[in-house]
Amino acid sequence: MRIAISQLNLHVGNFAYNRQKIMEAIDSARSQHADMVIFPELSVCGYPARDLLYSKAFVDECMENTRTIAEHCTDIAAITGGPYPNSEKGGKELYNAAFLLYDGKIQHVFRKALLPTYDVFNEYRYFEAARDFHTVACKGSRVAITVCEDIWNPDTRGMYPIDPPAILAQEKPDFMINISASPFAWDHLGERMAMLAENARRHQLPLFACNLVGGQTDLLFDGVSGVFDKQGRLVDTLAQFDEDFKVYDLHELSEKPDIPIPGTPNNDEKCQLILDALTMGLRDYFRKTGMKKAILGLSGGIDSAVTLAIAVRALGKENVWAILLPGPHSSQHSVDDAVKLARKLDVSHDIISIGETVSSLGKSLEPYFKNTSPGIAEENLQARARAVILMGLSNKFGHLLLNTSNKSEAAVGYSTLYGDMSGGLSVIGDVYKTDVYGLAAVINKEEEIIPENTISKPPSAELKPDQKDTDSLPPYEVLDDILFRLLEQNNDVNDIVSGGYDPELVKSVARLVFYSEYKRYQTPPVLRVSRKCLGIGREMPLDGDYEAICKTPGQ
Amino acid sequence: MRIAISQLNLHVGNFAYNRQKIMEAIDSARSQHADMVIFPELSVCGYPARDLLYSKAFVDECMENTRTIAEHCTDIAAITGGPYPNSEKGGKELYNAAFLLYDGKIQHVFRKALLPTYDVFNEYRYFEAARDFHTVACKGSRVAITVCEDIWNPDTRGMYPIDPPAILAQEKPDFMINISASPFAWDHLGERMAMLAENARRHQLPLFACNLVGGQTDLLFDGVSGVFDKQGRLVDTLAQFDEDFKVYDLHELSEKPDIPIPGTPNNDEKCQLILDALTMGLRDYFRKTGMKKAILGLSGGIDSAVTLAIAVRALGKENVWAILLPGPHSSQHSVDDAVKLARKLDVSHDIISIGETVSSLGKSLEPYFKNTSPGIAEENLQARARAVILMGLSNKFGHLLLNTSNKSEAAVGYSTLYGDMSGGLSVIGDVYKTDVYGLAAVINKEEEIIPENTISKPPSAELKPDQKDTDSLPPYEVLDDILFRLLEQNNDVNDIVSGGYDPELVKSVARLVFYSEYKRYQTPPVLRVSRKCLGIGREMPLDGDYEAICKTPGQ
Repeated sequence: MRIAISQLNLHVGNFAYNRQKIMEAIDSARSQHADMVIFPELSVCGYPARDLLYSKAFVDECMENTRTIAEHCTDIAAITGGPYPNSEKGGKELYNAAFLLYDGKIQHVFRKALLPTYDVFNEYRYFEAARDFHTVACKGSRVAITVCEDIWNPDTRGMYPIDPPAILAQEKPDFMINISASPFAWDHLGERMAMLAENARRHQLPLFACNLVGGQTDLLFDGVSGVFDKQGRLVDTLAQFDEDFKVYDLHELSEKPDIPIPGTPNNDEKCQLILDALTMGLRDYFRKTGMKKAILGLSGGIDSAVTLAIAVRALGKENVWAILLPGPHSSQHSVDDAVKLARKLDVSHDIISIGETVSSLGKSLEPYFKNTSPGIAEENLQARARAVILMGLSNKFGHLLLNTSNKSEAAVGYSTLYGDMSGGLSVIGDVYKTDVYGLAAVINKEEEIIPENTISKPPSAELKPDQKDTDSLPPYEVLDDILFRLLEQNNDVNDIVSGGYDPELVKSVARLVFYSEYKRYQTPPVLRVSRKCLGIGREMPLDGDYEAICKTPGQ
Repeated sequence: MRIAISQLNLHVGNFAYNRQKIMEAIDSARSQHADMVIFPELSVCGYPARDLLYSKAFVDECMENTRTIAEHCTDIAAITGGPYPNSEKGGKELYNAAFLLYDGKIQHVFRKALLPTYDVFNEYRYFEAARDFHTVACKGSRVAITVCEDIWNPDTRGMYPIDPPAILAQEKPDFMINISASPFAWDHLGERMAMLAENARRHQLPLFACNLVGGQTDLLFDGVSGVFDKQGRLVDTLAQFDEDFKVYDLHELSEKPDIPIPGTPNNDEKCQLILDALTMGLRDYFRKTGMKKAILGLSGGIDSAVTLAIAVRALGKENVWAILLPGPHSSQHSVDDAVKLARKLDVSHDIISIGETVSSLGKSLEPYFKNTSPGIAEENLQARARAVILMGLSNKFGHLLLNTSNKSEAAVGYSTLYGDMSGGLSVIGDVYKTDVYGLAAVINKEEEIIPENTISKPPSAELKPDQKDTDSLPPYEVLDDILFRLLEQNNDVNDIVSGGYDPELVKSVARLVFYSEYKRYQTPPVLRVSRKCLGIGREMPLDGDYEAICKTPGQ
């Protein structure tokens, strides 16, 4: 039995494209004498299709394309993914299914039972949970086929009361297949691989796991499809962040050497992973929306510098336009640093002063502002004047504006709505400020791309004279650690205080996060690289009261 | 047996406030010799608490407050709602539960089985589904208690395979209670009441249904708690859009006269309902966020006129500030109409010309725009200059900017991101343009508030000379009907074409809707008054391909 894994980058709703990709892979598999080729979860329509799954025309397209692909599977078998109408009396209208295609037909449908509905997942919105499980005979072997989450509950201690692979294993299959759309987070791969290995080992069955690759808006899939022998040893993986195709002989797996299950990345590895993920995500968002060119505001600071470097990697220097928008409080070194970077990366760059626009705005508002002290309102005028100019160029020339905000400032609301929070896509909005420096170090590993001065100077929004971020915020090392505990680790204020932090500091950070939710509600999608992104996967009230959960002992 | 219904307007996370409201209602019920008082779903913490339910501190507060309320229930019983930790081995960490409080303690917990996870609901994100059901004896009666959706599946033909009230009815209870947070849509009440009546009739049991009232961000609850006798006759309802409290004698229900189940509202009734719902929603968003004052841009057109009138109803004329922002293409009649309305409503109003700011922006962009023909980019500069000025005043004086976009323009993307799409809350963003005129008619029912000229002139964005909305869009009667079929009725392009529309017209509208999703992603929360709001309850990809589902026959 020879099994091919086709790890594809698919496009939601683009049936012609997805079908062609799948059929080409079937041809490749056939030419390499594979008996079966497997594809990612929901491969026929792309993942996540979201409320397109409520459209009958969409589901019809899925079934029609699945049948067309089946006609292409005469001598070879294929496992594809797609929605499958529920013909029973009760329950949701669809199943999330794997299809066994062979002999020109859909031979069998395997329905998913465990429907992730947490964090970025929302599958019970669309799908009914399967309640029975069967293996299937194909080309002389018996196969246990599961869809993604169905293999993630090996101890039935988790979020679900059942464990589909254990049920399937009772039918004594020869091997297991799992098709998935398991998204990237920088510290997730080890867990995913260990869980797959544990399934193979526990049931003493070889396992072929095909994962999706590519970005679909904010959600990034890293691929790294894996093959495990019946001892649960990882014997091969497919590419990370790229399409890949490999063929395996079932009976030769045990002869292959071990590949270690990845551990938790160190800081350099983490930043390299994030950089690669963001590059893929940015490239795919442009490709899938049909956009070619990007524009961004380049301030001379670290955030826009890293964003520009990623954009050049993803889109090519000829497709990126950097605009310097110095204002009344911009320093000369900021302009110099920005120009230096643009020249180094060889991208088009222009300088447009916001001075006159800010003056006009100030004059219009003068009758109302005259007896007040200058503050946030005046600072925001500068940030918003920049956004209007950038969006003017974006609208005129069809360049997509890249948002350059980082996760730390987005978390505490240290940013201007309709100002620096503008843009079609947030590139580093899931990267803490301290990690933005880590990305800069990776970018500068071989030669200085981002100017040393951009890295070494204290961060500043430059919206008033001699402003520093630390005027309003704790140092980023402290802030980011508190935010990581609040967000990624889902700690409450009290848990963090128990970790040794000053109660007032933690409360003030938590309040900033809770009470700035209304700002984040209106920001662009954020490329997700962590386990808890401020965007997809976090749904908070905008008008809740948070005082009770910000209480600390003794209050 | 005397049963009180306490229909409350609660606040997510505001435990002290919710607890006090609940305890006061318990005192009122006691003073009116009630044996039992019932409260809405998740009353202890407010609904929807969203990802606050992932916080252990939040859930602890819920349980602690429930116990405190229980201590207050000595001689009287209360049914409250809250999350309840799942102590079993598998499944989600919480149940959505009703608590029977009596004799100073939590006597019994009733867990919800049917977890709505569609449209605006996302309950399986947090809650495990109950799998067993029991009635309870209390004060000499046997009671069947369900939480919201558990009563919504009477035929087991729907979204779920089971029907909890039918299971409970086997234990021969004396009456049923349902506690809910069932949101408003203008055509939803009749369906809700008919379904409750059908449950009472089918099981031949009196039913007391307590629904939540009030706005929580975009989600509006209209109350209208109801009492049904064992024949399934509706015998009383509580207030719509307001808190209410009533006490009933179980054995006197059958003596009360019938109240007809509401039918589908006619157009006037519909617009009155929407107006009342929006007034409540706007008021509650301000109250729950602690905001007092609103600001908005008043153009002289119908959308901002209606928004202003609603704001005055909700917040009081002293709390609303209207800013006229005439630009290079604004007509004198627009300014006149806007001033006339502001004077009629007696609200503060100021005129700030955007001319100079637009000139400055034009000058800054001139080197780049010079060889291009004026178009959308230039139009958007005007809309964005207005937003920057409005946000400047908002930031300086702490007024919340109201967004004045309607549903028709939001649907087709006929609006400017960071321009007229700005604001903290969209007031009429779930109201089609044709219905905005209907709201104006209701507002003007007794006297002319909104100037006749605002109503009669052809709609125009006034961003270029002699512009009319119909230059770019079909007439609103046509557009709105196509949009209603696409959105509320979830029709595909083909379905609408079968209804007699020109295929090219329908496709062009559908494409506008699909391909402007990226704009709506960044807009404020929209007060929801329909069954399909462009905001909460609609989750679409931003970078999908839609050509396959826009196909029409013969393509």
